[in-house]
Amino acid sequence: MDFVLDPPSGTRDFLAPEVRRRDHAFGEARRIFGRYGFDPLQTPAFERIEVLTGKYGDEGDKLIFKILRRGEHEASGKADLALRYDMTVPLARVVAKYGSNLPTPYKRYSIGPVWRADRPGKGRFREFTQCDIDIVGAETLLADAEIIWAIHDVLDALGIEQFQFQLNSRNALTGLLEAYQVPEELATPVLVTLDKLDKIGAEGVARELADRGLQDSIASRLVADLVGGDEDLIRTNLLKSEAGKQGLEEIDRVLSLTTGLPAGRVRFNASLVRGLDYYTGIVWEVTAPGFPGSIASGGRYDQLIASLGGPAVPACGGSVGVERILSSMEPAAEGEASKLDVAVTILEDSAASVLTELSAALRRTGLTVNTYLGTSRKLARQLRWASEQNAQAVIICGENEMMDGVVTIRDMRSGEQHRVPAAEASPLIFTIVNGPQS
Amino acid sequence: MDFVLDPPSGTRDFLAPEVRRRDHAFGEARRIFGRYGFDPLQTPAFERIEVLTGKYGDEGDKLIFKILRRGEHEASGKADLALRYDMTVPLARVVAKYGSNLPTPYKRYSIGPVWRADRPGKGRFREFTQCDIDIVGAETLLADAEIIWAIHDVLDALGIEQFQFQLNSRNALTGLLEAYQVPEELATPVLVTLDKLDKIGAEGVARELADRGLQDSIASRLVADLVGGDEDLIRTNLLKSEAGKQGLEEIDRVLSLTTGLPAGRVRFNASLVRGLDYYTGIVWEVTAPGFPGSIASGGRYDQLIASLGGPAVPACGGSVGVERILSSMEPAAEGEASKLDVAVTILEDSAASVLTELSAALRRTGLTVNTYLGTSRKLARQLRWASEQNAQAVIICGENEMMDGVVTIRDMRSGEQHRVPAAEASPLIFTIVNGPQS
Repeated sequence: MDFVLDPPSGTRDFLAPEVRRRDHAFGEARRIFGRYGFDPLQTPAFERIEVLTGKYGDEGDKLIFKILRRGEHEASGKADLALRYDMTVPLARVVAKYGSNLPTPYKRYSIGPVWRADRPGKGRFREFTQCDIDIVGAETLLADAEIIWAIHDVLDALGIEQFQFQLNSRNALTGLLEAYQVPEELATPVLVTLDKLDKIGAEGVARELADRGLQDSIASRLVADLVGGDEDLIRTNLLKSEAGKQGLEEIDRVLSLTTGLPAGRVRFNASLVRGLDYYTGIVWEVTAPGFPGSIASGGRYDQLIASLGGPAVPACGGSVGVERILSSMEPAAEGEASKLDVAVTILEDSAASVLTELSAALRRTGLTVNTYLGTSRKLARQLRWASEQNAQAVIICGENEMMDGVVTIRDMRSGEQHRVPAAEASPLIFTIVNGPQS
Repeated sequence: MDFVLDPPSGTRDFLAPEVRRRDHAFGEARRIFGRYGFDPLQTPAFERIEVLTGKYGDEGDKLIFKILRRGEHEASGKADLALRYDMTVPLARVVAKYGSNLPTPYKRYSIGPVWRADRPGKGRFREFTQCDIDIVGAETLLADAEIIWAIHDVLDALGIEQFQFQLNSRNALTGLLEAYQVPEELATPVLVTLDKLDKIGAEGVARELADRGLQDSIASRLVADLVGGDEDLIRTNLLKSEAGKQGLEEIDRVLSLTTGLPAGRVRFNASLVRGLDYYTGIVWEVTAPGFPGSIASGGRYDQLIASLGGPAVPACGGSVGVERILSSMEPAAEGEASKLDVAVTILEDSAASVLTELSAALRRTGLTVNTYLGTSRKLARQLRWASEQNAQAVIICGENEMMDGVVTIRDMRSGEQHRVPAAEASPLIFTIVNGPQS
């Protein structure tokens, strides 16, 4: 082969065990989102280039995979299409296009690949799957809580333990800055720095706040209060401003709507910031022991759909970091999921059509049946193949069986063999594979 | 919005009913391929451009979507990646790369989108789903028959009726040309013309054969015999040459291995040609009343994997025309699949957390539960919403219920209402939705 055999940089080939593992995770998400009444949405892999450019900032724009024009226009070197960069811009286009033909509110999920020309690295891919739910057209905090519930159920179904929603609100952040008398012109840099508490610690944040021009005394008091763990103190301070009061109300409403979740699953975190030019209300992220960073995040973004070219509608949503979760969990054990129900050996070509019909009957009962397709006609070789396949039962039909008009069924666990007419083999095999049915 | 709202030319947005309809079809295919022991394979949406170019002929090359280089190289106007054009070239790359780490033979299926810059038209898309199975590394005709069985079962599961496999062999075609003394240099043009029997009819084919330089008498006898329906005559003629004899043996073996299928499902068709520079042995396609052209096709291509850059291994496979099948079948009825189990009305904000917990309990039993997220607090309005959702049961908790510590459950079919404590509501609702359990 005169070319590199690897998939392109930052992409992956998924062989059977990995496909099964991934499909299981996506299937759980689909099942749960469905129970909450979310509709699936699938948009094309690429969009017209003008739909995507200018939506992700200068840095984001550089990471968009652009598709060359075709035919006589190819030589222009210009692009007219671009690969999907996230699920949100296509959602905005769909909401703008289908408008009142969509349910109100429009609750949809999208699970599928997106493409970003990021520098590939550990756990960072150029083709990766996003798993998003959004509710478009609902102002109520019930919607914010519903997103949290649904994502909670998905994380739970994926077997993640002791995860925790860190909950905050943009209004509470505004209130926080007011309470600590942070000058308005420093609001954004201060919040950007506060967001680094997990990464650079209290001291690092206090130093960076001072570097950014915040008075030393304010910086150290703000950081000390945030990491001090005295929620009542923070709450008291937030109640001093209108914004802080409103933020607290939002947070308390969502907390009251999620009391049905296991204790401690959702917790107010006054220093949680997240995307500043994105969220307008409730914000949250999910952390869990053993997972670096967050494994899910979301919030309310009432201006986003309009800013992406859609109509002005309130919206909230969340995203499960399925790739991060999948890569932190146990990789698929080779062959784990490939236990075979029935292996069919082929010793005599003349037996093949009888065996083919028996196989069909077994498959109709839901069993997985695999036929030996190699060149050997030796039983020992074919039994080795059956054993490698992890087969539960093996069907054997050699010269002897042909003469007697029977097939031999071998139970691979016990090693027992039974000679029965082909027409009677099906229930026997079913019992070997599934155990006796009462 | 300052851009076109439609998805790019030749692509589609799939809203919920259509996603459900498509996922059902793909799910059936996955389920059945799995029962035959085929493994799923997923490769990236794009490949290095040199993996794809030169594999599909000059016409095919023009239809490849090419991805512009990025960063400082974007200005070059050159492409380094290209969107997947089919599932076969990625298969060849995977076989070359993973070689002996794959099962032998390697039986895999791939279901996913491919992209071709064809002129869009009725039923012809630029993004469409292919559904392929292949067996790489098996010479036996058992493998050819297994592909036919598996694809039969998929078409059957999709509800297609009276479909028929048209079966032929490259060797039989070679024998046919020999038997009718077609000059060797005319072999290819004659076969290309014979392939048009369905489209331009016997007369058209005879005329085109003569135009291509075949003797009038040969042309008319060949066409008359092929459309005459006298299979014995064709068979007698094929037996005159070694190639024809071998072809007939292949065909009869596959026929004998598919006798378990409903009568008439597989039939020898001496005029079936299909891709000449592709297939080397058995070839087949599936036709069905009500569907134009073929709805599935396949065969053996022992040189293809090597010619695509993979190792020299025998291979056979087939492809289900899922897009053609889906577009010829009934479109998804709007809202058909969106019957809702339980609708939760919200009349009092203070009732919301009780209702949220009840909803969670119901979802854990597998029910789909949708909560009213609108702004109205009027029961009539919310019951209309529940009715639009096609809800089976509605949960109501207004001021009265709050005072009495109960919820009202409305059976939407009978109109009956029951007042019960929230803790006892779950089994009642389950019975309304699923009927009484014995």
